[in-house]
Amino acid sequence: MDGNTMKLTIERGDLLNALSHVQNVVERRNTIPILSNVLLQASGSELRLTATDLDIEAVDSAPAKVAAEGAVTAPAGTLFDVVRKLPAGAEVELELQPENQRLSIKAGRSHFELPTLPASDFQTMTTDDSAIKFALDAKDLVRLIDKTRFAISTEETRYYLNGVFLHTTDDADGKPVLRAVATDGHRLALAEAKAPEGSAGLEGVIVPRKAVGEARRLIDGLDGPVDVEVSDTKIIVRAGRATLTSKLIDGAFPDYARVIPKGNSRKLSIDNKAFEAAVDRVSTVSAERSRSVKLSLSEGKLVLAVNHAETGVGNEELEAEYGDEPMEIGFNAKYLLDIAGQIEAPEAEFMFNDPASPALVLDPSDDSARYVLMPLRV
Amino acid sequence: MDGNTMKLTIERGDLLNALSHVQNVVERRNTIPILSNVLLQASGSELRLTATDLDIEAVDSAPAKVAAEGAVTAPAGTLFDVVRKLPAGAEVELELQPENQRLSIKAGRSHFELPTLPASDFQTMTTDDSAIKFALDAKDLVRLIDKTRFAISTEETRYYLNGVFLHTTDDADGKPVLRAVATDGHRLALAEAKAPEGSAGLEGVIVPRKAVGEARRLIDGLDGPVDVEVSDTKIIVRAGRATLTSKLIDGAFPDYARVIPKGNSRKLSIDNKAFEAAVDRVSTVSAERSRSVKLSLSEGKLVLAVNHAETGVGNEELEAEYGDEPMEIGFNAKYLLDIAGQIEAPEAEFMFNDPASPALVLDPSDDSARYVLMPLRV
Repeated sequence: MDGNTMKLTIERGDLLNALSHVQNVVERRNTIPILSNVLLQASGSELRLTATDLDIEAVDSAPAKVAAEGAVTAPAGTLFDVVRKLPAGAEVELELQPENQRLSIKAGRSHFELPTLPASDFQTMTTDDSAIKFALDAKDLVRLIDKTRFAISTEETRYYLNGVFLHTTDDADGKPVLRAVATDGHRLALAEAKAPEGSAGLEGVIVPRKAVGEARRLIDGLDGPVDVEVSDTKIIVRAGRATLTSKLIDGAFPDYARVIPKGNSRKLSIDNKAFEAAVDRVSTVSAERSRSVKLSLSEGKLVLAVNHAETGVGNEELEAEYGDEPMEIGFNAKYLLDIAGQIEAPEAEFMFNDPASPALVLDPSDDSARYVLMPLRV
Repeated sequence: MDGNTMKLTIERGDLLNALSHVQNVVERRNTIPILSNVLLQASGSELRLTATDLDIEAVDSAPAKVAAEGAVTAPAGTLFDVVRKLPAGAEVELELQPENQRLSIKAGRSHFELPTLPASDFQTMTTDDSAIKFALDAKDLVRLIDKTRFAISTEETRYYLNGVFLHTTDDADGKPVLRAVATDGHRLALAEAKAPEGSAGLEGVIVPRKAVGEARRLIDGLDGPVDVEVSDTKIIVRAGRATLTSKLIDGAFPDYARVIPKGNSRKLSIDNKAFEAAVDRVSTVSAERSRSVKLSLSEGKLVLAVNHAETGVGNEELEAEYGDEPMEIGFNAKYLLDIAGQIEAPEAEFMFNDPASPALVLDPSDDSARYVLMPLRV
């Protein structure tokens, strides 16, 4: 390693942007020192940055004036903090000092030296021959993620639910769609986009929670196409100069279609914002663990109720479109709020069967999104 | 208790405002149920609210249409959350229901019932014959608090340092001042205001950290006079309709005057914002526990340096007004940032003696504030 060099100058803003795209992948507490580091590779007219936790790898690059090509790794967190705290508009000189193999960071009258580890110790991910490649609009990917990820399970024992299931299939009208599904066994969220060219044959992969979150960060505010590649073991998301590669969860996602109720005929239509506010209020008096809310439906009316001996009683009455037989059904307040938070239409539409059967929740302004809620006994 | 009543209507905004002034005093985890509750007293044309942790008592009131006078206690946190979540502009009906002694909260089509405990179980603070009473401008009290409270000790064993020491004394020019002092043994902060009429003879009381914070909340954004009363065991702060009463810390505050250096003659004047940013940057590479920064002074120049074998090296060079002999001195970075955050002038002024002696920091635009910093060995 001794005698290695690397030297370049780069705009603080460009460096910060690239660092912010990759550094989040690095786990805060690492017992393996190299995993705390970001790989810096200077060549041609760019600096390439790579971070990994061995399951996810994030790569981004930024334009740089490279005086000496080379590569090294340095602590991702410290480098990010230093660059973040430099004044806007600063020009930053990065140099791997040959004499002591430290990374020198100079900007104006600030000078930092960070310890390094050799680039050769850094483990990058191999790429498979990806069977399936397609491009989809960043806005579509945002929608697929936002409308499903809240339902991802956090139970580690059911590891196959710890991600979003992504596959292509035909929708009810026989049109090919790219579908994202997440469930924790208590609720399910499903969102679809028109199947992009090349996505046919994607039988289903489980993208882990952290990769879903990182992909979402990467495409935030982005306009235009995002490239996706899926192999048997990995998914790759490319947006602009950045690339995110993640291992897939090796497991079988349950046959979720069985869970989606088909014959629910009791329809409730309700002002979504008023519903959200009312659920939030009544749940104030619910016990922290169950957070269960009882919905009482009757002609033109919905009553939300929480009744706890210790903490109190809450009742909210809302006007509603409902014309079926009166019924009572209970749900977890947090799950109701999660769904209400994703409904874009002024009204949320609930389809019920009976108090013991799952309810279907629909968004009248987005028929490609569906939510299923298991009832609680109340 | 059975058969008690209380009934009133009140604007949601008025109720929320009063609740927000008192509910913070209530400790989140209470083994004594009544201490989780707020005392509600309806009489005349107002609702009076009282919260206590037995050391601090906060009282506020709000205009209300009282239909039945009475008093009761109800869970402060739940009541606050429910009222906070009600729509702006709502009219709220509060009623102690005679049949089940629950507090009914009605607004629009929302209805809540909270469990209560009788008002007679609620412990209010007795008031002493206060020896000293004075009024000072809210802005002055804000200044006395903000410029000192960051230096309050958090070490419970030195309980007499867990507050702000408040007393009247003469300043260097022999003018009577009201002075606030806080120290944790590593640094000291002092701020003064012109002694208000009636404050003479205040020999010194220690106002506990929580009371300082609550008083600060109470007067935030306030204009005009605040009434203060001090007895041997309590301090009372009155602002608008609200009253905060706190027990004082029963201990002897150290003779802080001995700590304030008098003969420091080496003067450093430095751009405060640039200094703050530079300290923040170099401390990025310091080990979390010590956070020590070395200041190297020489003609017209200040160099800030952190050097850690493991985490790296940071150097910041700043132009400075300094004309004395070169010297090196170390400080805790966080303490430097705390002080820089309170300096209002464009420049911060440091007065040094030698590397082993405390430094004095002054704010050229506020000569009533002084800060003392113990050096660290670097």
